[in-house]
Amino acid sequence: MLSKSQIGFIKSLHQKKYRKEHGIFIIEGIKSIIEFIPSGFQIHSIYVLNEYQHLLPELPSNIKLFEINSKDLDKISTLQAPQGILALVHIPVQEKLNLAELSTGFSLVLDGVQDPGNLGTIIRTADWFGFKHIICSPNTVEVYNPKTVQSTMGSLCRVKVLYQDLPELIQEINIPVFGALLEGENMYQTNWGKSGLIVFGNEGKGLSPEVINLIDRPVTIPGAGLTESLNVAVSAAIFCADIFRNLQK
Amino acid sequence: MLSKSQIGFIKSLHQKKYRKEHGIFIIEGIKSIIEFIPSGFQIHSIYVLNEYQHLLPELPSNIKLFEINSKDLDKISTLQAPQGILALVHIPVQEKLNLAELSTGFSLVLDGVQDPGNLGTIIRTADWFGFKHIICSPNTVEVYNPKTVQSTMGSLCRVKVLYQDLPELIQEINIPVFGALLEGENMYQTNWGKSGLIVFGNEGKGLSPEVINLIDRPVTIPGAGLTESLNVAVSAAIFCADIFRNLQK
Repeated sequence: MLSKSQIGFIKSLHQKKYRKEHGIFIIEGIKSIIEFIPSGFQIHSIYVLNEYQHLLPELPSNIKLFEINSKDLDKISTLQAPQGILALVHIPVQEKLNLAELSTGFSLVLDGVQDPGNLGTIIRTADWFGFKHIICSPNTVEVYNPKTVQSTMGSLCRVKVLYQDLPELIQEINIPVFGALLEGENMYQTNWGKSGLIVFGNEGKGLSPEVINLIDRPVTIPGAGLTESLNVAVSAAIFCADIFRNLQK
Repeated sequence: MLSKSQIGFIKSLHQKKYRKEHGIFIIEGIKSIIEFIPSGFQIHSIYVLNEYQHLLPELPSNIKLFEINSKDLDKISTLQAPQGILALVHIPVQEKLNLAELSTGFSLVLDGVQDPGNLGTIIRTADWFGFKHIICSPNTVEVYNPKTVQSTMGSLCRVKVLYQDLPELIQEINIPVFGALLEGENMYQTNWGKSGLIVFGNEGKGLSPEVINLIDRPVTIPGAGLTESLNVAVSAAIFCADIFRNLQK
């Protein structure tokens, strides 16, 4: 059984304020936890129902393991239907942007994406196509939001997500800056080359004016013209698939 | 001001059971409502804050209009941040499947998609690319779920969503049946032809065994091989974009 203070501590991590204060976030589900254990992230502790324990690999001695009952899991879980196992993970110190490394390939750039599920889905999609970096404007939703973490389905342990002033980044880097815009060149005819930043805007407002001015290549996903826009995670996926196709040639 | 019984009635429509019983669902936001008014859907009534009223076009006389205060809107809204206007819409009687019409192009088929946001996003994406029909297995999430309706962003008034036994449909129709599967032909090399059904499975379990057996052409989105799967709305979007590209040639 968990103590009241342990439960209170874990529940506090449902909130951004306390995640920041303690430098810890929550992941749930055996699949994600198994992927995080050997990753660069440091696991703080694991809380598991008896019947899920055999699914865990042997743990390094610095990870504390607690067997808990489902009543306590319901209290500490961020999910409506908890998945039998939950872990606390240390938030890593953000690495310095390595412009030389970024310049060798494609990275996704998010300018004020607000929905945690969209951010998580974009991370999962980037991982599918092997894109290693996502750079977010400071006003993009927090990557350690439980809904974001959950919708990455474990991909968060492989994709680096960095927060950075975008105009500064764009001005310092020397690769093409593509922007997902409603008026731009036809994506199907775009020659992506070998490297670039691909910038996506906020769900409602699109790209911010400071960033729009710095886009070299506005690109549009052709459509039938009946509806105004696509969901941002959908646009990002269609761009990723097109760039990946181009890289395979 | 709305009466208690009006508020109770609208709140009951947040639940599937009462939407079915009354044959009415909720849409919110001025953009969606403006798109639904001239569509084939019949609006039952509109509830609007004074300051949003000028955004409405002239209404047919059979639509009841109620000016409400924001306290009442908070009570009847399905959203955490209500958007100033809400409408009740009659659920149309499901049309009979027109196999001849379906056979002239591409339709998306969903086999047990459970997340309302995923269904809504798929409808919005289908609308972007001009796909007119989505056929859902009976165990797919209800299309009039408020989260689904909201994430269609108005596209629900243009895309027909039908529920239908899938093995029956597939056996009756005479066009290629493509399935989004992890092991299949490379999507980038797929020749889609001029018509087909594209089948997508449940978020966790994928396609059901009865349906898998009826797939003519399993197709896979190539990736870097690091993660197991993509979000179903993301897969659907990548397929739609590829088929649309093929149709443009």
